[in-house]
Amino acid sequence: MKSNFQEQENQLETSHNKTPLLLDQWKPCRGARAIIKEWLLKLRLCLGAVCGIEWYCYALLGILTAILSFLMDFSVNKLLGAHQWLYMKLEGNILLQFLCWTLYPACLCAFGSTFSNQMCPFSTGSGIPEVRTMLAGFELPHYLSLTNMFTKFLGLISTLAAGSTVFLGKVGPFVHLSTMVGAYLENLFTLIQGSKKERAATEMLVVAAAVGVASCFGAPISGVLFSVEVMCSHFAVRHYCPCFFSAACGALTFHLFTLWSGDGETVQALFKTNFPTALPFYPLEILLFALLGLLCGALSCCYLFCHRWILHVTKTNRVFIKMLTEEKGLYSALVVFFLASLTFPYSAGQYMASKYTTKQLLSSLLDSRQWSSQVYNATVQLEPLEWNSSGTSVFLSLAFFLFMKMWMLVLACTLPVPAGYFMPVFVYGAAIGRLLGEGVAYVFSTGVIFGPQWASFNPGGYALAGAAAYSGAVTHTLSPVLLAVELTGQFSHAVPILLCALVANAIARSGNRPSFYDALSISKRLPHLPSLAKASSQLPSTPLGQVLGVNSVWLQKAAGPKEVKHAISTCTEEQIPVVDTNESQILLGFVLRSELLMFLRHCLNQSLEEHLDEVCCIHPSKVLLSPQNTVEEAHSMLSLAGGQTLFVADKGRLVGHITWPKLKLIIEGLAKEI
Amino acid sequence: MKSNFQEQENQLETSHNKTPLLLDQWKPCRGARAIIKEWLLKLRLCLGAVCGIEWYCYALLGILTAILSFLMDFSVNKLLGAHQWLYMKLEGNILLQFLCWTLYPACLCAFGSTFSNQMCPFSTGSGIPEVRTMLAGFELPHYLSLTNMFTKFLGLISTLAAGSTVFLGKVGPFVHLSTMVGAYLENLFTLIQGSKKERAATEMLVVAAAVGVASCFGAPISGVLFSVEVMCSHFAVRHYCPCFFSAACGALTFHLFTLWSGDGETVQALFKTNFPTALPFYPLEILLFALLGLLCGALSCCYLFCHRWILHVTKTNRVFIKMLTEEKGLYSALVVFFLASLTFPYSAGQYMASKYTTKQLLSSLLDSRQWSSQVYNATVQLEPLEWNSSGTSVFLSLAFFLFMKMWMLVLACTLPVPAGYFMPVFVYGAAIGRLLGEGVAYVFSTGVIFGPQWASFNPGGYALAGAAAYSGAVTHTLSPVLLAVELTGQFSHAVPILLCALVANAIARSGNRPSFYDALSISKRLPHLPSLAKASSQLPSTPLGQVLGVNSVWLQKAAGPKEVKHAISTCTEEQIPVVDTNESQILLGFVLRSELLMFLRHCLNQSLEEHLDEVCCIHPSKVLLSPQNTVEEAHSMLSLAGGQTLFVADKGRLVGHITWPKLKLIIEGLAKEI
Repeated sequence: MKSNFQEQENQLETSHNKTPLLLDQWKPCRGARAIIKEWLLKLRLCLGAVCGIEWYCYALLGILTAILSFLMDFSVNKLLGAHQWLYMKLEGNILLQFLCWTLYPACLCAFGSTFSNQMCPFSTGSGIPEVRTMLAGFELPHYLSLTNMFTKFLGLISTLAAGSTVFLGKVGPFVHLSTMVGAYLENLFTLIQGSKKERAATEMLVVAAAVGVASCFGAPISGVLFSVEVMCSHFAVRHYCPCFFSAACGALTFHLFTLWSGDGETVQALFKTNFPTALPFYPLEILLFALLGLLCGALSCCYLFCHRWILHVTKTNRVFIKMLTEEKGLYSALVVFFLASLTFPYSAGQYMASKYTTKQLLSSLLDSRQWSSQVYNATVQLEPLEWNSSGTSVFLSLAFFLFMKMWMLVLACTLPVPAGYFMPVFVYGAAIGRLLGEGVAYVFSTGVIFGPQWASFNPGGYALAGAAAYSGAVTHTLSPVLLAVELTGQFSHAVPILLCALVANAIARSGNRPSFYDALSISKRLPHLPSLAKASSQLPSTPLGQVLGVNSVWLQKAAGPKEVKHAISTCTEEQIPVVDTNESQILLGFVLRSELLMFLRHCLNQSLEEHLDEVCCIHPSKVLLSPQNTVEEAHSMLSLAGGQTLFVADKGRLVGHITWPKLKLIIEGLAKEI
Repeated sequence: MKSNFQEQENQLETSHNKTPLLLDQWKPCRGARAIIKEWLLKLRLCLGAVCGIEWYCYALLGILTAILSFLMDFSVNKLLGAHQWLYMKLEGNILLQFLCWTLYPACLCAFGSTFSNQMCPFSTGSGIPEVRTMLAGFELPHYLSLTNMFTKFLGLISTLAAGSTVFLGKVGPFVHLSTMVGAYLENLFTLIQGSKKERAATEMLVVAAAVGVASCFGAPISGVLFSVEVMCSHFAVRHYCPCFFSAACGALTFHLFTLWSGDGETVQALFKTNFPTALPFYPLEILLFALLGLLCGALSCCYLFCHRWILHVTKTNRVFIKMLTEEKGLYSALVVFFLASLTFPYSAGQYMASKYTTKQLLSSLLDSRQWSSQVYNATVQLEPLEWNSSGTSVFLSLAFFLFMKMWMLVLACTLPVPAGYFMPVFVYGAAIGRLLGEGVAYVFSTGVIFGPQWASFNPGGYALAGAAAYSGAVTHTLSPVLLAVELTGQFSHAVPILLCALVANAIARSGNRPSFYDALSISKRLPHLPSLAKASSQLPSTPLGQVLGVNSVWLQKAAGPKEVKHAISTCTEEQIPVVDTNESQILLGFVLRSELLMFLRHCLNQSLEEHLDEVCCIHPSKVLLSPQNTVEEAHSMLSLAGGQTLFVADKGRLVGHITWPKLKLIIEGLAKEI
């Protein structure tokens, strides 16, 4: 019994010690270990002299994520190139071309789906709902494992390599990948520094969210804004500089790798545009941008409704349930085959520019030249435009693209593969903007309204604004505005884009409807309070007293060894509350588990019947909650207290306690009520 | 006695009522009032049907501030034009020119100083330290009055009209002006909506901080980033959309007014540059940008040291104290006369481009053409460059400018006038960057290093990066990066500017030195915790028990009318704590003052000796603090609780309570210890 206590104490000491690198000397290869450890310590001292070790972690996080991002882009480009090469080689034989066009992405997605579900089922989907939940303070350990990272990375490559047929993106999973790299570096940091875990862990997650976006596109500032938006209720200002630092490292590394790989002469935007700078837009066009915002907002509501509907169907329809639980690979293959046969360039695909990859789609939509006038005036056309390759008008092509991609994207969202849902929405918004822009350009080019001086009208600006507004409305965020600016390096349109995105957001948020990620959180029953509030605004205001349950373990201050032993054996908490007497239950504070173990050893040694308060120090509990506090308030207080146990007392009497795991259970319980 | 109670109760009811517009019917002109009120109510219903009334307030805040900003720019331009016209007319007579050059700004500053100190002494200085304190939750009512707004507006016009001689800016006071407009709209909103005040007031302040920057330069995104940075510890995500909305309204209004006044054809950046877009910079230049960051960081430390020194001198030197308390107008006139005689174009001014206004200075520094090569090649020079007008090399001019403006700016900071300190620092940083850029361009133009292919080297990019990095380092912020981008509409340099600013910030923040605003806060003894932490890192961790004082008023639950009467007469708090018995002091909760008044009336009516708990409802106190909590923790909890009274209890016993006014006293007490 005694040795057992000693062992437990040793473990406690080890975990609390400040320099774990120098301890645990009972392992093999002592000599080599000691030398390595000494070198590591020296390195730590050297590095620490310049700035805190955590800053090296932030830099490393940015650099590693950017390298992952570059590697992914590189592999995806090779795989897409292979597909295009094969398709071109089969020119002349439509059947073979059809098989090549459909089976290549179907096989890739079937592989991605099967592989990721076999290796780690948590790797499918976007990952942003889970990241938001983790940022709110809850631990979801499965989502941060190295296996998950590996699986998600490979799975995402196969999804992206399926190309614009599947039409899925990279951002969401990349934010998730970045948090996994962050969690790994965080463990490394804890090992080197021996600091307390809770506080730094959240910090690393917040930084990783910013880095994810930043290294995905080389866009540091929108990364930081995304990190602010994705937070549950408050953004700590102390995370601001680390976010910027890490995001800048990530963006710089990403740009430099792109540079070294031979794309471009210098560090520049990913989708560099050539908008006219002298007169980017006429002042009256601001009204058109506001109109575009209205349009994007309305269409986003439609898309979100369809998405919620399909989420509901996949959970209630028997065929879907059976396919999505047992035959994920087959389901993916079938859905992608269906989508690909629609986008086949000799079928409906010819009317929706399906030969373009997602990147080419976006580049073509952001072109500053007017398509309609090019076609009508038959002037110099530098490269053939895919949008009117079949001879149909660009207006019909764009409208058909919008109609088809709406439901195709909703269907693609059900695929059980690692995939992002932001980029497709961004491109879709660009198409909405382009359609409006081309329409206005056509009306102006006839000279009926305003006369011929509006000749330098730029439909590309509308595409950019539409992309930011539609993606912002779908996700209920504003950072896409800055992302649009950073992706194109085009600042001249910043104010109208912001206006357009604000209008679209206002419409999408009206009526307290859930955003895209909220819908996923609700569907997955994640313990994320703001999402729950969207589903039922009453739930987060539930009083704590209703859901807390009874507190089973406490000690009175005059407790003897018997009571202490019983308390230790019945509960696993680190802090055990101490009350005045068992009758009055007035909360005095708490004792640490380790101190109780010491108390028991002391009693055994002395063979005395001593009272708890004579030996142990009773720590005062810093913040007390009452049963009238809402679950939301309890969550805020717990966030602020940084992982301590908070005790709940009613008029001085102990009622219960709140920790992160307990709060997670409570909120998961609430989520089941929806 | 009884009527007195009733009156107090009536007041309480009025102040707590939800629709104050329909009440207070004992005032004159009842008929007209009733009609107007009815119309207002109808308007409120109409407006409220589209979106919440607060959104109209945000829009109005942006629009009003932007109009103020436009009016100020307009008046300042006229006044500056008048000065230049007069100076040109006196061409040929150096003495008269000297008098015109020196007396005009001296008189303006003397007027501004006397006027603002007579009307409202709180209107001098930047205002940002006070805004930061108010954002931290403390009320500084003098700083938000309408008189202050009027005084600050006029005073700032006279300071800015003194031109580049005084070399002071507009941003800081504009953020302050914006908060005053916000506070006024907030009162209006409270009147219309009848909502609770505390929560919305902070919201309006946060939004106003963003709007201040946004409408000063038409830069919405950096406004929001500034608002995030300026917060004490946490930025509430629910303020994010209002900030963006209001900032966008402000920026758009500012741009449209500028447009209508005839400057420019469309909405575009204030200092539009024409950097080459094809190859904005060579990848290797990133190292040079990092070097520039180092340089800016080091110089900012030097500047901040000088600033702290002069703050110390003005508080200890007898002459300064006497001048700054009794003869503010004279002091301003003398200092400005001295500065102006130095910048007189026939004295030292000719070596530091003193004929330029602040705006022209910045525009000239951001020019993308190489000055040195222009001079040496004697190619087409479109407009005469002021920097080498006297025949000296631009390097000497820039170096002389940097040397002189450093101490001149430090001296100008002591002027008791409403003035911003951001813009001069921004321009100063641009000069640092330009000097480095020109130097590198000169070295490259000789072709010794790297050869002639670096001919398209752009020193303007260095000026931009230097401006962002130096101003960021001085204020310990990163939003200047985005401000630099938004001011110039130049996104191609975003990544190197960010890198440069991060390096400069890292150097400026090392060693826990206070920023420019921190130094002002400490000097003014404002209750701003993060600033205090810079002065003495121990202070914010002082345990609450040490500084709380004794709690004088409480009621036991069995208290009779006599005790209640005594409690009401001795304290002014709204919530009075109730304990179990006077001996045990176990805190049960609190009663509201209004309920105690009702209890007394009840006792008087019934002529009974009843106990408190038989009549009044004892509200549970939601969150309890302990005396071991630090002052910083108490501040966080109070921010989260949103203006409630927080009780402090030790092992269930009442120790004291914390409210915002009390915390303000405590922190001001701590500030005196420095």
